[in-house]
Amino acid sequence: MNNLNKYFDLFDQSRTSEQAFNNLINLFSEDITFILNGKKKEGIHNWKAFVTKIYEENVDLKHMYEGWLSVEGTDTYQTNWAICGKHKSGKVYTQTGKDIAKLNDQGEICYLENVPDNTDLFKGY
Amino acid sequence: MNNLNKYFDLFDQSRTSEQAFNNLINLFSEDITFILNGKKKEGIHNWKAFVTKIYEENVDLKHMYEGWLSVEGTDTYQTNWAICGKHKSGKVYTQTGKDIAKLNDQGEICYLENVPDNTDLFKGY
Repeated sequence: MNNLNKYFDLFDQSRTSEQAFNNLINLFSEDITFILNGKKKEGIHNWKAFVTKIYEENVDLKHMYEGWLSVEGTDTYQTNWAICGKHKSGKVYTQTGKDIAKLNDQGEICYLENVPDNTDLFKGY
Repeated sequence: MNNLNKYFDLFDQSRTSEQAFNNLINLFSEDITFILNGKKKEGIHNWKAFVTKIYEENVDLKHMYEGWLSVEGTDTYQTNWAICGKHKSGKVYTQTGKDIAKLNDQGEICYLENVPDNTDLFKGY
């Protein structure tokens, strides 16, 4: 759970800190599968590209989350989250949703599914 | 405009910093009128009580805003904003809206109207 508990804060810090970005990437397995609003992507290279693109398009971003909980009868963890952000255009926005995650035997995040309440999120990713 | 440009950041910092809270209060005139979702309140004492109550009820809060602009033909300034927050219950939430403000001759904020897009906000304030 340690890597999951670091995830959202490191994501936010990665906007301005290369060290935080490196620490963020180290939370994940090389063969991570991640799903953005139903669209599946694989590999740490694509994950890095996703985070980089987020910060090319956003001048500010803040996540809050309720706390990772084990989903009974599964090997997954889940939390609700909320964000506010400021797009490079100057527009501000919010989004809410949930993340579903799995950890491998090393405790690395090997699966991360982002389920936004508003399905317009990540249309361009 | 200086006081308006400090407003949102000092509001966020006031959660954990008494100095920021004092600096926030100093942005306003003693006789401030503020309007929360259509409900009018007056006086710096009530403004302090509002901010204090926000942080009794929220364990985290982040504002983003597009930038204060003068509203043509009026003495008011306006900006869109977005927030994400975490209630003391653990629930996370978002809100968007606009603020409308006026400054007095000393540059103090003497009028602040908060117009949330979702009118459930501030029902308890």
